Amino acid sequence: MAWNTNLRWRLPVICLLLQVALVVLFGVFVRYDLDADAHWIEERMSRNISSDLDNEFYYRYPSFQDVHVMIFVGFGFLMTFLQRYGYSAVGFNFLLAAFGIQWALLMQGWFHSFDGRYILLGVENLINADFCVGSVCVAFGAVLGKVSPVQLLIMTLFQVTLFSVNEFILLSLLEVKDAGGSMTIHTFGAYFGLTVTWILYRPNLYQSKDRPSSVYHSDLFAMIGTLFLWMYWPSFNSAVSNHGDAQHRAVINTYCSLAACVLTAVALSSVLHKKGKLDMVHIQNATLAGGVAVGTAAEMMLMPYGSLIIGFICGIISTLGFVYLTPFLESRLRIQDTCGIHNLHGIPGIIGGIVGAVTAASANTELYGQEGLAFAFGLGSSTLSWNASTQGKFQAAGLFVSLAMALVGGIIVGVILKLPFWGQAADENCFEDAIYWEMPKDQKSIVFRSEDPTLKPSEP
Amino acid sequence: MAWNTNLRWRLPVICLLLQVALVVLFGVFVRYDLDADAHWIEERMSRNISSDLDNEFYYRYPSFQDVHVMIFVGFGFLMTFLQRYGYSAVGFNFLLAAFGIQWALLMQGWFHSFDGRYILLGVENLINADFCVGSVCVAFGAVLGKVSPVQLLIMTLFQVTLFSVNEFILLSLLEVKDAGGSMTIHTFGAYFGLTVTWILYRPNLYQSKDRPSSVYHSDLFAMIGTLFLWMYWPSFNSAVSNHGDAQHRAVINTYCSLAACVLTAVALSSVLHKKGKLDMVHIQNATLAGGVAVGTAAEMMLMPYGSLIIGFICGIISTLGFVYLTPFLESRLRIQDTCGIHNLHGIPGIIGGIVGAVTAASANTELYGQEGLAFAFGLGSSTLSWNASTQGKFQAAGLFVSLAMALVGGIIVGVILKLPFWGQAADENCFEDAIYWEMPKDQKSIVFRSEDPTLKPSEP
Amino acid sequence: MAWNTNLRWRLPVICLLLQVALVVLFGVFVRYDLDADAHWIEERMSRNISSDLDNEFYYRYPSFQDVHVMIFVGFGFLMTFLQRYGYSAVGFNFLLAAFGIQWALLMQGWFHSFDGRYILLGVENLINADFCVGSVCVAFGAVLGKVSPVQLLIMTLFQVTLFSVNEFILLSLLEVKDAGGSMTIHTFGAYFGLTVTWILYRPNLYQSKDRPSSVYHSDLFAMIGTLFLWMYWPSFNSAVSNHGDAQHRAVINTYCSLAACVLTAVALSSVLHKKGKLDMVHIQNATLAGGVAVGTAAEMMLMPYGSLIIGFICGIISTLGFVYLTPFLESRLRIQDTCGIHNLHGIPGIIGGIVGAVTAASANTELYGQEGLAFAFGLGSSTLSWNASTQGKFQAAGLFVSLAMALVGGIIVGVILKLPFWGQAADENCFEDAIYWEMPKDQKSIVFRSEDPTLKPSEP
Repeated sequence: MAWNTNLRWRLPVICLLLQVALVVLFGVFVRYDLDADAHWIEERMSRNISSDLDNEFYYRYPSFQDVHVMIFVGFGFLMTFLQRYGYSAVGFNFLLAAFGIQWALLMQGWFHSFDGRYILLGVENLINADFCVGSVCVAFGAVLGKVSPVQLLIMTLFQVTLFSVNEFILLSLLEVKDAGGSMTIHTFGAYFGLTVTWILYRPNLYQSKDRPSSVYHSDLFAMIGTLFLWMYWPSFNSAVSNHGDAQHRAVINTYCSLAACVLTAVALSSVLHKKGKLDMVHIQNATLAGGVAVGTAAEMMLMPYGSLIIGFICGIISTLGFVYLTPFLESRLRIQDTCGIHNLHGIPGIIGGIVGAVTAASANTELYGQEGLAFAFGLGSSTLSWNASTQGKFQAAGLFVSLAMALVGGIIVGVILKLPFWGQAADENCFEDAIYWEMPKDQKSIVFRSEDPTLKPSEP
Repeated sequence: MAWNTNLRWRLPVICLLLQVALVVLFGVFVRYDLDADAHWIEERMSRNISSDLDNEFYYRYPSFQDVHVMIFVGFGFLMTFLQRYGYSAVGFNFLLAAFGIQWALLMQGWFHSFDGRYILLGVENLINADFCVGSVCVAFGAVLGKVSPVQLLIMTLFQVTLFSVNEFILLSLLEVKDAGGSMTIHTFGAYFGLTVTWILYRPNLYQSKDRPSSVYHSDLFAMIGTLFLWMYWPSFNSAVSNHGDAQHRAVINTYCSLAACVLTAVALSSVLHKKGKLDMVHIQNATLAGGVAVGTAAEMMLMPYGSLIIGFICGIISTLGFVYLTPFLESRLRIQDTCGIHNLHGIPGIIGGIVGAVTAASANTELYGQEGLAFAFGLGSSTLSWNASTQGKFQAAGLFVSLAMALVGGIIVGVILKLPFWGQAADENCFEDAIYWEMPKDQKSIVFRSEDPTLKPSEP
Repeated sequence: MAWNTNLRWRLPVICLLLQVALVVLFGVFVRYDLDADAHWIEERMSRNISSDLDNEFYYRYPSFQDVHVMIFVGFGFLMTFLQRYGYSAVGFNFLLAAFGIQWALLMQGWFHSFDGRYILLGVENLINADFCVGSVCVAFGAVLGKVSPVQLLIMTLFQVTLFSVNEFILLSLLEVKDAGGSMTIHTFGAYFGLTVTWILYRPNLYQSKDRPSSVYHSDLFAMIGTLFLWMYWPSFNSAVSNHGDAQHRAVINTYCSLAACVLTAVALSSVLHKKGKLDMVHIQNATLAGGVAVGTAAEMMLMPYGSLIIGFICGIISTLGFVYLTPFLESRLRIQDTCGIHNLHGIPGIIGGIVGAVTAASANTELYGQEGLAFAFGLGSSTLSWNASTQGKFQAAGLFVSLAMALVGGIIVGVILKLPFWGQAADENCFEDAIYWEMPKDQKSIVFRSEDPTLKPSEP
């Protein structure tokens, strides 16, 4: 079957349509939060706030910037490991994230920041929009190399919508705590993406044998992504926690879990290679699993050793997943998971949800203090009606809801993306920038050579 | 004509002379601002400030660091797209910026932080120095590949001086608002650089046909620059805004404008290619135009949808500029704009100035509140003597002053740089690191081969 | 002699053993600091702290993140300049730092944050752990390419321990000021590493002539490291300074010193090349020397011009060191300093210690104010018993203690690392990723070709 990968009209039309719709919706619905509105100074005077610093901006802006770097440089460069798909990895991630954050501001705004008439934007909305897009970046990892930018925009449109519904169910209806998004971001994003790639299964994908592998420098580019994700993950898990000790604690827990994770990922990578050599895929990915798995519990009284244990376990499980599970998923379940997101976000996300449920269920006034417990779990003034084990059960319920939403949503979106007119590439042209990008000369010779005999014509 | 590109004496002498002069001038003129002086603790006690946090440092330092990254990694790597000019792009940008910030601390200090005897340095001075150098980095983009480091230092010396004069006229005499520098940084920097490159026109520049193009990995390096510029631009536009809501609002507006800009830049890039393929040049550059164009108005009550509209328009105009205007400027006006700064900083800068004027002219107490309006436009206690439409006119006047200063200054500096003894390369050696850098072996073979027949002798 | 470089059991076992030990020790000893504990809200109420911002987190977290980037991306990528050792540079740096920070939290915790029963962790501990690991990263630069990851973990184990003892002697016993660690981090790390590499001397190291050199793109990767170190160094030198003016001042001084350093490094690099060309090694390294040399004095009233002078001198000395001293050390003293850390951290560290001693010795109440002096040097309420020149002498003593600890410790650790069963590579396989890493196909052909005849068998 010959695919038409010429996006000359489809991509511009969808980009412009979406952006026009966003402009209109922002015009109708979006205004500034009081902390970002020029009326703030009057509010500050009337509420007798002594310092300009008591603007939400100063609590959250440094964390926001770190999260922003994770989404655009972190995820973008992490996926540049493929030798001829670096432009698409960075560029399409840029495109989908830029669209996704705008749509997420609206969707999440309607659910969480709507005052009856307007969505009020502040820095916390920006962070949450980045979070929401984070789950799309995760899913992108599963379908990397096999979808067109048009498909990615459609996937983003639906996934952001579903994410926001799921997040609303968890945070507002089930009153689940999930500051770092083990459930809402990672579990949901991973299983959504895996379901989509399962629907989009391409039996003859690996005809062009070289392309889905890396070259020396592409692995170094990917390490830029890995390290910025790793370094800024403490900001990710603490960015929307309560002011003060909760943000502080989330940072410490994430830092500890990630550090432990590196050692066990290296250990497993070496022991699973017959000559004891390390594999860049594991160093690039499994070292991050510890950050995913403390997402839910990071702001709780998990204790530093608790974080180390989680990181320890996740470094092992994630590396094992890359070596044994990914090939199994592909050969038996027909799930082609390009970046191995199941090992980095799927399993660690589920572990994170469980750890969060257990940690919440063991919360008590001795550990948190009376006031601390009320503050940590948002109980207002009465802690009487609240019960730790019930909280734990709701946390567990949240995990199942996220999984269910991901699977059902993934099937629907996968079927939509399977329609043949989205500009997707033929199997033998997957993982190839030249399909969608004007290439520099050094690559053209390579591309044209392979294009002549094997590539399907991209012009009708 | 044979050029002497051996800089063995010229570059060291100018570097050392400039640095000695800076040491002497700092010794005579520069001391710490009270917030950075050991006497601060006494001041704090006497003024009864309750918290250490009420030091300007904590309001501005995170933003400063982001701006710093934009100047050195952002601009530096953005210009590494050329296949054999990466060392020079990053290295010369590093050199000129390191010199420029010191000179800017002095020049801007005399105009804005001089207490009659000393220039008092605080974190805001560091940010403003980075801003000033930002305009030099913009101009560097126009002459990239065609000038020697000696020429760059001379250009920086003059441009920082002119920038400071222009900034003083705008901010202090015309009382214009320009927090993100659409006029002072981008418009001034772009038209200054374009005028210089117009004076330095090289008719036979493209004899060596390969060099001004990219290779696969050089475009990925450039994306590092693009993304750090894009991600940290909200910090750039908010870094010197008023405390509180103004910084907060500037971040939100910039974030929105940049996001919209990505979608329209992608749309235009695709539609303008006959096979609908994307061009890395557009993705690297036009996606940033939205940040430039909200520079002036970002801290004002522009509204999120207003920001989206600006980003929408600028993504389109900037991409159109790369496709149609840059070739026209080169062939008809003899303006060789290596990085296309006219499309990224020139036109969007002018748009930003106009948007700022219009937004300021429509400010009113309903939108800002009585106190908010006074605070936003620095009116002290009386808002009576102030008139929004007058402010708008002064804003517009500021734009014209910036353009005039850039053109006149650019001509003067261009003529100086045209003198034949600054170590500039012959036309066929432009865009070639090997002229000024000791090269690693893998490049030497390439270079020596091409050097033998075509390169002019660089030894007298 | 044939080395066995198969790490299949040694590396996993040591990683897992170390990580298990860390988990147990954290379980026994480590809890949250009050600012990161859920009881903080009660403390806040009882101490009547008005704002959530008065949590140590908000003073230090942005600086912490910058330091974190310096350790993992800064040092990691700075060492990627070798053409076939990029995986190891980034990957082993990642591994040793992830282990080192955990071990440093314990070691430094016992000395500085132990309440009799528990080590209490807060953000300042995280910064100090990063600092401690910084000294290991410095030492790694000396042995880069010649040691196995097992040796690096052992070196980290010992060096972190010695660092913590040395730091305790300096900061707690001698009451030395060393906020940016000129002595504790740079001098100690550099001379420790140099001593280790001296013990590990390999007479036939450069048989494989190409490997210890760079290729074009590897030098650009290294510039990522350089720039992030350079940009964030102000955060490094100010991260643990006193709140308020001291942090503010440390930033300004470091910024000034680094800027001056760039100009003189460029000047010397050019003048020392016979054709006046610049050398990437100098730009990558000597431009940073100014940050090292203001480490101790940055938070003192050094004055901006004082910082410029230090940067000026260090740029010159460091570049001279790369050109003349490094070859001398290797040929005469048998010290093979792969990255030239003696020029970047060794000499500038000593200069920094001396500058700190002189600056402290000239402190007086006129310069600092009565309160300011007491606050800056931690004198409590009485400044009577304190004497500036005595402080200066103790500072100088601290420098000698650091040097002595480094030399003695380096000899001991070097002898341990010289044992033949740590998986180190044969001389001809140094600087070669393929020994320890599974390589992508583009590199395999290169590697296998050279492996057949020259590489020692790595399987027993």
